[in-house]
Amino acid sequence: MALRVGVVGGGQLARMMIAPAEELGIEIRVLAETEGMSAALAATAVGDYRDADTVLRFARDVDVLTFDHEHVPQDVLSALVDAGVAVHPGPAPLAVAQDKLVMRARMAELGMPQPDWAAVSDQAALQEFLDAHGGRAVVKTPRGGYDGKGVRVVSAATEADDWFTALAEDAGGGALLVEELVDFTRELAQQVARRPSGEVRAYPLVATTQRDGVCAEVIAPAPRAGERLERAAAQIGVAVAEGLGVTGMLAVELFETSDERILINELAMRPHNSGHWTQDGAVTSQFEQHLRAVLDLPLGSTDAIAPWSVMINILGGPAEGGLTERFAPAMAAHPTAKIHTYGKDPRPGRKVGHVNVSGDDLDDVVYEGRAAAAFFA
Amino acid sequence: MALRVGVVGGGQLARMMIAPAEELGIEIRVLAETEGMSAALAATAVGDYRDADTVLRFARDVDVLTFDHEHVPQDVLSALVDAGVAVHPGPAPLAVAQDKLVMRARMAELGMPQPDWAAVSDQAALQEFLDAHGGRAVVKTPRGGYDGKGVRVVSAATEADDWFTALAEDAGGGALLVEELVDFTRELAQQVARRPSGEVRAYPLVATTQRDGVCAEVIAPAPRAGERLERAAAQIGVAVAEGLGVTGMLAVELFETSDERILINELAMRPHNSGHWTQDGAVTSQFEQHLRAVLDLPLGSTDAIAPWSVMINILGGPAEGGLTERFAPAMAAHPTAKIHTYGKDPRPGRKVGHVNVSGDDLDDVVYEGRAAAAFFA
Repeated sequence: MALRVGVVGGGQLARMMIAPAEELGIEIRVLAETEGMSAALAATAVGDYRDADTVLRFARDVDVLTFDHEHVPQDVLSALVDAGVAVHPGPAPLAVAQDKLVMRARMAELGMPQPDWAAVSDQAALQEFLDAHGGRAVVKTPRGGYDGKGVRVVSAATEADDWFTALAEDAGGGALLVEELVDFTRELAQQVARRPSGEVRAYPLVATTQRDGVCAEVIAPAPRAGERLERAAAQIGVAVAEGLGVTGMLAVELFETSDERILINELAMRPHNSGHWTQDGAVTSQFEQHLRAVLDLPLGSTDAIAPWSVMINILGGPAEGGLTERFAPAMAAHPTAKIHTYGKDPRPGRKVGHVNVSGDDLDDVVYEGRAAAAFFA
Repeated sequence: MALRVGVVGGGQLARMMIAPAEELGIEIRVLAETEGMSAALAATAVGDYRDADTVLRFARDVDVLTFDHEHVPQDVLSALVDAGVAVHPGPAPLAVAQDKLVMRARMAELGMPQPDWAAVSDQAALQEFLDAHGGRAVVKTPRGGYDGKGVRVVSAATEADDWFTALAEDAGGGALLVEELVDFTRELAQQVARRPSGEVRAYPLVATTQRDGVCAEVIAPAPRAGERLERAAAQIGVAVAEGLGVTGMLAVELFETSDERILINELAMRPHNSGHWTQDGAVTSQFEQHLRAVLDLPLGSTDAIAPWSVMINILGGPAEGGLTERFAPAMAAHPTAKIHTYGKDPRPGRKVGHVNVSGDDLDDVVYEGRAAAAFFA
């Protein structure tokens, strides 16, 4: 009897679980939002993940349920658990991923290093935080933000008025998250995998570059990180996974500061863009690892297969024609580039694919990755 | 518009094309022999590949047609070509792969090194060959053999009587292939990829070990081969691919003799068991390469990603329970092993999966591969 994993959500993260599932010999089924999504090949159902009946019906034929995203509502998650469905990650860790205020509070409880923060429910409270932090800060909506959406740098308390109003209208009150504007030198990401029975494995620490709030490039391992920093980041990743009881893949996005501290920026409880390099650059890709972890199978080696790997996102895609029309020139010029596309139509800023390159020389792999990805711009 | 590849045959070779197709962003469709085959995830049709109408109907919605095996009859291939379908490999090279007598004759025309051979249509002719070659020889049915089937070592001409009779009855005459019994020290395999527009790339030469006529282990690169032998094998592979006009993957199985010659044993015009190591051990797996080649896309790098890779077949599978029941202990003991299973029920001698391991030390990777595969025995 094959092991059966159900994935809620049909985006590219679900899609990228299909290859390792097929290679390992795991049956993968996807509940997609609509027809023709990225993970269409494995889609066995189409429906609304906010509807408990839809998700329960989908979960009936699988051994474990996991996710392409963190947006399944808590009442749906509870209904699944009540029905005896194995859900990984579970409702409790997902609650932390779903609300940035809850996340900050839990990180504080766990003693994790993070920026100064506060929950502010009105202009006055925001002004107070601004006054205490040099007049500028980052305001975030606790829910629903991603890829830079729901994040705003403000230098006056009035600049969040629309969000306060929306909170009052849509959520019947509540607070925004305000964080100090960290003087960071670069962004890093630490991934760890954890299975229900407790085994944890950390991936190499990576450096990430964002453009307009969206991940653009990842270098693995993070250049010039040094053993102290690598160990500190891995310890944070493991502590968060264990502290929150995360099962599956966890990504901890980090700021590295000019005074050599690392502070937690965000968490993601699923395969993450910062780990796409593992598909071609690590012994066990984050997608295979996620499947193993949620099935409570022993985790695979997280070792890199080369000294350096780079991941370059294809954002937007070609203004004319599809991505596959660019295969020929890109492949001809870059025979070592691993091209990944997600079956999505090009649209400005949209993540439609990525390129991985691994090798011995950092400058070479960065050049090859960027040059290959440029064919898809 | 996505590129669409149709694969005739739903076995594990078709299955293993699914992962790279999905990663790259190529649409793959499979014409499977029956429901529930290895490549079921991508099966869009079920039918008989010997029926021209069935295959023509399947081919209507794809850009190129390729194969999981070499058994599609020539009249079906001709009908496809006549209908304007892009078929890779084409009917001419496939005719060579389909008949071992034709293969020997074509290799001779191309001046390729091979064992002494003859077409024998009766006992007397076979006896003559035996007398000229020390009283022992290998007899092969020209068609339909695989994995040791249709191959017999004989020391008396009477030992092929049943095959002569079958030839007379089933085929209305014809000949058997008889070959000298080569005094080989080991078996090697050379893979090359060739695309219709002519580009050719050779993979590293590998050493293969057969057990009961079935591939059991592959080591890449072939240990102690030396540059001269590697170059000679690559030249043979390229010469055969170009000489026959093969498109897609070609595997040339070779004998290495005690007097340091290499002789062609068999040809396969598709991804081949001797190249499964490339899934985890080469920049471009043979399955991705086959897709690129048949689509006439530029070929990917055939470089190995580690000094050594090993592939251990899982033959037969567990006497009780399924393969996935062995995942936990195998993965716990061997975190660097890449486990592949084909969704097939265990059956004595059947190829149901394989394990790949790559690393810096040959003894280590061989040990890890064998030990991990042993969990599935």
